[in-house]
Amino acid sequence: MGVIARTRRFSMASSALSPPPVPMELHVINCEKLVRCIRQHLSDSSRPLHGIVFLKGGEEQTRHCTDHIELFRQESYFAYLFGVREPGFYGAIDIATGKSTLFAPRLPNDYAVWLGEIKPLSYFKETYMVHTVNYTDEIVRVLHAEYQGSGQPLLFLLHGLNTDSGNYSKPADFEGKEKFEVDLTTLHPILTECRVLKSDLELSLIHFANDISSEAHVEVMRKTKPGMKEYQLESMFLHHTYMYGGCRHCSYTCICATGDNSAVLHYGHAAAPNERTFKDGDMALLDMGAEYHFYGSDITCSFPVNGKFTSNQRLIYNAVLEAHNVVISAMKPGVSWLDMHKLAEKTILESLKKGCIVVGDVDDMMAERIGAVFMPHGLGHLLGIDTHDPGGYSKGMDRPKEPGLKSLRTIRQLQDGMVITVEPGCYFIDALLFPAMESSKTSKFFNQEVIGQFKNFGGVRIESDVHVTANGCKNMTNVPRETWEIEAVMSGAPWPLEK
Amino acid sequence: MGVIARTRRFSMASSALSPPPVPMELHVINCEKLVRCIRQHLSDSSRPLHGIVFLKGGEEQTRHCTDHIELFRQESYFAYLFGVREPGFYGAIDIATGKSTLFAPRLPNDYAVWLGEIKPLSYFKETYMVHTVNYTDEIVRVLHAEYQGSGQPLLFLLHGLNTDSGNYSKPADFEGKEKFEVDLTTLHPILTECRVLKSDLELSLIHFANDISSEAHVEVMRKTKPGMKEYQLESMFLHHTYMYGGCRHCSYTCICATGDNSAVLHYGHAAAPNERTFKDGDMALLDMGAEYHFYGSDITCSFPVNGKFTSNQRLIYNAVLEAHNVVISAMKPGVSWLDMHKLAEKTILESLKKGCIVVGDVDDMMAERIGAVFMPHGLGHLLGIDTHDPGGYSKGMDRPKEPGLKSLRTIRQLQDGMVITVEPGCYFIDALLFPAMESSKTSKFFNQEVIGQFKNFGGVRIESDVHVTANGCKNMTNVPRETWEIEAVMSGAPWPLEK
Repeated sequence: MGVIARTRRFSMASSALSPPPVPMELHVINCEKLVRCIRQHLSDSSRPLHGIVFLKGGEEQTRHCTDHIELFRQESYFAYLFGVREPGFYGAIDIATGKSTLFAPRLPNDYAVWLGEIKPLSYFKETYMVHTVNYTDEIVRVLHAEYQGSGQPLLFLLHGLNTDSGNYSKPADFEGKEKFEVDLTTLHPILTECRVLKSDLELSLIHFANDISSEAHVEVMRKTKPGMKEYQLESMFLHHTYMYGGCRHCSYTCICATGDNSAVLHYGHAAAPNERTFKDGDMALLDMGAEYHFYGSDITCSFPVNGKFTSNQRLIYNAVLEAHNVVISAMKPGVSWLDMHKLAEKTILESLKKGCIVVGDVDDMMAERIGAVFMPHGLGHLLGIDTHDPGGYSKGMDRPKEPGLKSLRTIRQLQDGMVITVEPGCYFIDALLFPAMESSKTSKFFNQEVIGQFKNFGGVRIESDVHVTANGCKNMTNVPRETWEIEAVMSGAPWPLEK
Repeated sequence: MGVIARTRRFSMASSALSPPPVPMELHVINCEKLVRCIRQHLSDSSRPLHGIVFLKGGEEQTRHCTDHIELFRQESYFAYLFGVREPGFYGAIDIATGKSTLFAPRLPNDYAVWLGEIKPLSYFKETYMVHTVNYTDEIVRVLHAEYQGSGQPLLFLLHGLNTDSGNYSKPADFEGKEKFEVDLTTLHPILTECRVLKSDLELSLIHFANDISSEAHVEVMRKTKPGMKEYQLESMFLHHTYMYGGCRHCSYTCICATGDNSAVLHYGHAAAPNERTFKDGDMALLDMGAEYHFYGSDITCSFPVNGKFTSNQRLIYNAVLEAHNVVISAMKPGVSWLDMHKLAEKTILESLKKGCIVVGDVDDMMAERIGAVFMPHGLGHLLGIDTHDPGGYSKGMDRPKEPGLKSLRTIRQLQDGMVITVEPGCYFIDALLFPAMESSKTSKFFNQEVIGQFKNFGGVRIESDVHVTANGCKNMTNVPRETWEIEAVMSGAPWPLEK
């Protein structure tokens, strides 16, 4: 395509997409699923089928002592069950009856002047499709009024470990808590397990987040030119997903790494803020995903900023792409994610061997964990309302201790309904490469001369969001992946490519 | 200008600006100013001229129990003195010597793999222009080693009220704090007072934030068309200021209010999230400002979304514009901000009287606080590293109690070097208008028939950032303000208008 056609495409920059209606019954279904699972658990442990699931939603935060309010995003477990986007709510679900109740904050009169219409409780009942809505100052009265048994009503509160952060969720706190019996252990593992397998409605939101983010990645790819700043790529991505997708939140801070920054796995945060000016010949690694009604996406594209792969760039890129494709071909229910990680490592090492970067027997390399030198992170993670969705390690699963494998956010067997990222990578990280090249046990595997050519190369990551189905899996991400597809799109071809 | 020229302008959308270098000596000057002021204060109170100012910088926050990290923005007092953008630092300034010390977190080895190069202490010393840098685990040792006196070294910690939020800043906490004498009362009022008057270097940053935000407002105005969503205007603003100005942070959540939403003063937050589809005939009120290296801007433009004012829109708009202009004409050192607020109210009421919206004597209306029915917020606030910069009420100043006046974030006299927003508004807010129209004391002032025409009108706000100079003031905001300027720019004319 000529320059004129390409310019026109750029100036017309828009979208084939628009934000779909949010199916709020999604959260009703989530609540029903939880009730079923808790009843099953209680029944299995010969406990009576009653009690109330009780959660506290998130609250707005001010920045330090100021009145600067950070844009609020709901706590994820609360979002899963109730879909409430306003701060300051509580929610309850009665296990015996399945009845759901929201408790809304009672707003002062001048809220109407400063912050907006004070909505009647009926508004929240209709919007969030719960059975009843009361005010937060009525929690004790309402929950006691409905209680039929003797003694104090039982609350199932949320308390448990997030295996990615090492933090514990905080059980709901409220005035009058002492008037209830409290169970801190039952809810968290069951609710977490509910979130692992996605319903069709959840999948539809993750799909939209993928569609708009994929389109935005293509848009960014087309507009990337040597001499730009990394944050300009972030800005274009954020704009596209908000402007045309209504996505106000991102799933995570954008990683827009070029040149050797692409060897920093979580680049882009405040201390490494996407601010390099990139040059002709650099690779870019863009890890960016939008969130739509709480449900996220997590997509990485890697490409040469000038639109043409060199032979070295093609070598590393194709090594990673092959791992990405081989894994997706193998994914289906019952497959172990640990095996998939090793498959990705092995595939990459075999390509690196063909490219004379490593030498020797690949199985020997695997035994010495050489794969983790080039890919120190895990192959992928569950994705949903959190980018690193919980449930990666359920009870009894121990995190591996070996390099690379210990970074896995899950070692589960795949199940129909999981959404998991497939994100192999290959990086030249001095902090890992130098010790491995010097160690007497592993130095033999490295071709130091060839590796020298990759100084400041950075790395390549290719990441798609994959839905595990009954018989296999479906890649929800739709971006150019083959090197020729990337080169074509970057020189102005439409995506998907025309035949 | 015809359609073709206009389309070309849109497709060429870019900027005349680029991010200027950040003058880090700005923070050295801020430290020196603080040291002078504390010495003066100690001297005035016959106290010895020693002690160490000691502050804790902000830390990264995760969202609830997850590993989702919110994009970090430095705590404002710490940013003022040290300009450090990384989380986890402490800072000290020795009052006797003026020597500044930063304490950086000691990062684990695998930081280099996941988060980026582990920078040597010399990097922070050079970047932030302090005298020395140590690790945070060396605080006690370093501060004690430099101490010459008897007893324990004295730390001036930050503790005091933010008069906008009602929150108190938290004094620095660290291991070994008990090995110091602590002063909690001296630092806060002095440091706050330092922030009230801006240096030339601070002004240069606020100026750039104004320049890029002004340009972005013009860009948004031009692209606004009936049928769009409010958040699309937000997205365009954010994109323009980040893409071309390198502004990753906004000063505050964008308020993109159209139709009757423009009567909600702080619209745009999570519970009122800029999501209305606006219609031909609506007014838009866009309150949006970018931040550059911590220093902010705060700009509001109001305009008809279809680019042509109706006579009613023109009436209200010009009432507010006249107040905005009259105030700016009167601003100079020594002028009371309370008087400016009343001047704005009176100017608006006189216009409303000419428009037959209110009837009777304007002084009587002032006495009954009718101005506050139409403008319930304060005329403006100090602006700097915080959007509502601290120091609006210094010791001994009491907040007024009357409607409207009690919302003032400052009642100070203007001083050379202040930056303050001038943001008069006129709104039709049912929650205020109905009671006032029904009250026996005030109903006589309202022409109910005419006011009926403004149902769902919303409101108009016009906000500029004004630098008080030795002899008057300078408006740092540069956007179309006259109705004909807005109409010209919205139909494709360049800004500033050509003669």
